Formats: sequence, C-alpha cells, structure tokens
Amino acid sequence: MASSLAGANVAILGATGAVGRELIAVLRERAPDLGTLTCYASARGGKRTLEVDGQEVTVLPYARDAITPGTLVFMAVSGDFSRSEAPALVEQGAVVIDNSSAFRYEPEVPLVVPEVNAEAIGDARLIANPNCTTAILVPALSALHKEFGLKRVIVSTYQAASGAGAAGIEELREGAAKELAGEPLPAEAFVHPLAFNVIPHIDSFQENGYTREEMKVVWEGRKILGLPELPMSCTAVRVPTLRAHAEAVTVETDRPCSAEEARRLLAQAEGVVVVDEALANRYPMPLTATGKDPVEVGRIRQSLVFGENGIDFFLVGDQLRKGAALNAVQVAEVVASRGALARAA
Amino acid sequence: MASSLAGANVAILGATGAVGRELIAVLRERAPDLGTLTCYASARGGKRTLEVDGQEVTVLPYARDAITPGTLVFMAVSGDFSRSEAPALVEQGAVVIDNSSAFRYEPEVPLVVPEVNAEAIGDARLIANPNCTTAILVPALSALHKEFGLKRVIVSTYQAASGAGAAGIEELREGAAKELAGEPLPAEAFVHPLAFNVIPHIDSFQENGYTREEMKVVWEGRKILGLPELPMSCTAVRVPTLRAHAEAVTVETDRPCSAEEARRLLAQAEGVVVVDEALANRYPMPLTATGKDPVEVGRIRQSLVFGENGIDFFLVGDQLRKGAALNAVQVAEVVASRGALARAA
Repeated sequence: MASSLAGANVAILGATGAVGRELIAVLRERAPDLGTLTCYASARGGKRTLEVDGQEVTVLPYARDAITPGTLVFMAVSGDFSRSEAPALVEQGAVVIDNSSAFRYEPEVPLVVPEVNAEAIGDARLIANPNCTTAILVPALSALHKEFGLKRVIVSTYQAASGAGAAGIEELREGAAKELAGEPLPAEAFVHPLAFNVIPHIDSFQENGYTREEMKVVWEGRKILGLPELPMSCTAVRVPTLRAHAEAVTVETDRPCSAEEARRLLAQAEGVVVVDEALANRYPMPLTATGKDPVEVGRIRQSLVFGENGIDFFLVGDQLRKGAALNAVQVAEVVASRGALARAA
Repeated sequence: MASSLAGANVAILGATGAVGRELIAVLRERAPDLGTLTCYASARGGKRTLEVDGQEVTVLPYARDAITPGTLVFMAVSGDFSRSEAPALVEQGAVVIDNSSAFRYEPEVPLVVPEVNAEAIGDARLIANPNCTTAILVPALSALHKEFGLKRVIVSTYQAASGAGAAGIEELREGAAKELAGEPLPAEAFVHPLAFNVIPHIDSFQENGYTREEMKVVWEGRKILGLPELPMSCTAVRVPTLRAHAEAVTVETDRPCSAEEARRLLAQAEGVVVVDEALANRYPMPLTATGKDPVEVGRIRQSLVFGENGIDFFLVGDQLRKGAALNAVQVAEVVASRGALARAA
C-alpha cells in the first residue's frame, strides 16, 4: 500500500543533528515511497555525507532556490534560522514543518500533535512542531480531558540528554566515563556536569522564576489542547538518560475519574500504550520506551490529593521520536493526505 | 567545647553498610569526644575491619549482652532485625535510634526530624529515624506550614542509588561502565538496570497502586508534621545519581504565600540552605548537595496552578546524611542533652 507521503518531494534542513537524523530514519520506515529526499546542513569540517542506520546519505549546502514548489520541508534548525527562512520558503510554494520554537506561539500558526488537534492544520503551509516534553504529554492529557475535563495539571519532568542534541548525548557518555575514571567532568552542552547529577534548569530563566522549557509545556499544552486558561505547572529537570523523556503527572479533573476508568481510556487513546502491570514490574521507563513510537503511560493511580477527582500517572516517550521527528512526520502525513502538497506543486 | 554526646557510649549495628559507615563519619565530625564507639556487623567473608575516610575501624559480631545500660544504639539494619532486637535492647537499658521502618508507624514510637518535632522525643528510649525522602522534605514543609498553613502537598522524587545501600551505588557505577562498553547491564540491587535509565518503582507496590516508598513519604510526612489528614501525594522515582535525593514539590497553602516570602522564610529555617540564584545558575543539585548537612532548597516560584496560595520548589539532600545518619545523630544529640543516657546508665 502506498504511504500517504508516496511520491512527495521532501527536504530536511539540519539533517546532521539528532532530530535531522531521526527524521531520515522515521521517513525511511513510514514512507519508503517518497519521491525525493534531499538533506541539507551546514558543512562541519567539510563533510558532505552522513550515515544513518548503516546507510549513507548525501548532505548538501542549503540554498533556498533549490526548494521547488510543493516540497515538504522539515526544519530541524535553530529558531533564528527558522524565523528567517520559513516565511520565504512558504512564499515560494513549500509546506514547512518547523521543529523550532520560532512560530509556536503565533496565533495564526497551528501547533500540532495529530492525535490531539490534527484539525488545526487546516490549509496552513507553515506548521509548528511542539516542544518534545509537550508532544509526549498531550495525547494522554487530551484523552483524559475529553472524558473527565481537566481542571489542574502538575508535571515534573525527567528529561534526557538528547534534548540538547547529539552533543548532549555525547557529553553525557563522556562525562560518565570521566566520573568512573575519577577525572573532571565536561559541562558545555549543559550548564553543569550531567553524569550522575540532575539539573533543574533547561532553557533560560523567565521573569516569573520558571524556565522557558517549563513555560513551553504550559503555553504549548494549553494551545494544543485548546484550553488557553488551563491551570498548569511544570518543573523541568535534566537527568542522565540518553534519549527518552519521563514525566510524573498529577491531574485534577472536573468529573470523578477512577484509576481504572483512566487506564481503560488511555489504553484506547491514539499514540499511547499503557504499560501498567505493577506486579510484573512493568511500568514506563526510558529503557523500554527508547526507539518506540507510542508514549508509554503507567503508574496510573487515584490521586491522594484530589481524591476521586484526580489521578497520578507516569509517562515516558522517546524524545527524538514522538518528541520531535515522528510527530513532524505525522503532521506531514496529514498535510499530504489532504492534497496540500499536490495543490502547491 | 564538649559535644552533647561527650562521654557517651555508642554502638552501631550494621556498621559496614552505607548508612553505618556514614554514622561513623558523622559521629567523628560532630562528637569526637564520645566515650566509646563499638561497631557491630555480621561478618562478610570473615572481614573484621572496616575503613572509613582512611581510618580503620574494628567490627565485632553482634551480641546483645555486650550492650550495657545507658548505651546509645544506632540500628542501621533490616526492619526484621530491628523488630526482633530493639525492644530487648531498650529493656536492658539502651536508648535505640532505629533507621528501619519497623517502628515508624507505631503511635507510641516518636518519629523525629529534630528541626521539626524534637519535642516528640519526650523520654522515649526507642526513636524511629524516618525514610530518607521524608527526612529531607519536612524541614522545608514545616517552615512553610507554620507561616502559611499547608493545604495540599505534591512531590515527585529523583532518588539516588544509595537508597539501595552500598550495593546500589556499586551497581550503578558498574552498570554505567558496562553501558559505555556496550555490554549487558546488571540488575540485582534494582529491579531493572539503573544506568542511563529511570525506574518509577522503589520498595513494594501497595493495593492503592502507590509504592511503599511513596506511602512512606505520605505516612511519615503527616506524622512528623503532626498533620494526620494532610492531603499529600508522591511519585517516587529512582534516577542514576549516586547519593543525593532530589524532590520537585508543589504546595497549596491556606493563606497567600509569595515566592519572596517563602524564600525569606526558608532562608531562616533550620536544616535548610536556600540555593536559588537563577541568573548565576545556582539551584539545588546532587552535584552540590552531596556530603553537605543542610538540604538545598531552590527554584522557589509562585505556583501557576494554585496562584497566590501556592509555590513550587525543588530540593536536594544527601540521602546518607540528612536522609539517614545525620538525622539519627541529631536525634541522639537531643536525647543526650536531656540527660536520658545518664539516667539509663
């Protein structure tokens, strides 16, 4: 069967980063019948090839003119670069899915997690991909909201080194080796050494004392769920894991919500897999969620604070998959299935 | 100046474990003028000496009869062992400070964090030392409660390998080395490999879906704070750090509580040091809190969920210090300063 991206011309900007590489891997899996896949990146040390899962990929220097009308462009680059290039690319007929935060808070730019708000895409030609922590959180929240109504959401995160890209992963591995050898630890990708440490600081501090990462979860969660006033808070913490983010979540609901009902509901939710067999020692973990498409949700239990109107749960999602590349490709699939690429070309 | 334990005869049961060794180190620091310090442990491989910070310590096989009246006994052993030995030791004139959970929930046994409820000790001769996660949490909660009244408390933990003792620390280091070498990881001290992973499972699962570790925080927090009905919840997660526990805490208060007031209050609280200079990248971390007596508290900010009646904060405390050995020694200091040891002898 043809994939929904069959025949599409696709470009990746920032192909050599952690998200760019994952985009290549996800597209190979889900859309082996693409028309063309062209990878762009700035040359680092002049290297013009890239290996992804043992296959070589050619990487070109980016040139805006090379992007033809109807091309689907994934941007896995800095917010500044997205801000300067995306509008021009849309102008010349491309459809852009941007992984940076540059456009996420623009009211006219849809911010999309397809399991939750695919309808927001409409006929937009610039779509923002959410922050990783938000992307893995909202499928479960949305399912709970539809049935019970969300009143309050409190999140504490356990975020992997991959959130700082390939350099973050490398620094964690190097730091762990140095700690074991009794040598001083590196701290360039992160503000402090991450190996055998946790750092309650991701992205810059805001005036209200929250970090931008924490506020992203609030701002983006509200926008994707369509609940602009939802009382929601987050503590975002970097932990020494490689590429899956975990989150401890407490929700208060408008209507009574038993742990059993929540479990049944989440088991049917799209993009979620319930892993919740305490007696078999099965619950969400980076160890098991890494490389997996659906977000693992478990430890579902009645809240001791909100009683029958609340539950606590724990979730883990692959930061580079659902947290970035997979979600972007899912957005692209919706765009393509609506014929938007063909219309543009 | 003489320490409050000057001249006291002290025994440590379980001296070779992570907590036992830390007890020796803390006593050397705080009470260099002890009368006698006798260390007991079951022989592992027949070894009868122990090195703590470069100094050799003799370890004897435990014999109840050797404990004389008026001896201060620290028990850093299993709950089963405590349950069978502590009453007999008290019976023969010892004062016992027990680090296990065996007696914590007995209404007549004081469960004490001296900064919070030293008065609960009274003339008890068996005192329970709380769970590590609770011990580092309640000094801050108590300070907030006195001023603003606690209405709800929600905690997510980031707990170090040391919670599983010396074997836990060793397994994490070994696991990290094996992961870096591409070899299979050990999982004996923990249910799953801990290196580069997080495990939302500490102690056994209860009928309500919470783990016993999570319920310990609730049960013990309520008892120490003297708030038996306090709505309180916890998600307890093991993370790959060595010996300091971190906690993300959200509190709702009865009366309005600004982040500034909370910060001022916590800066004056006993057993707490406020580390909260966002712009200098200073906040609580295992890296900085390890080996330190006071609990680091920071990331203090107005709650986005409870508004002016709530704050979020983050704390890190050394699991073996305030989480175990230091708290036990502080309890002993209160006992000794009240003359209870002399009266018993």
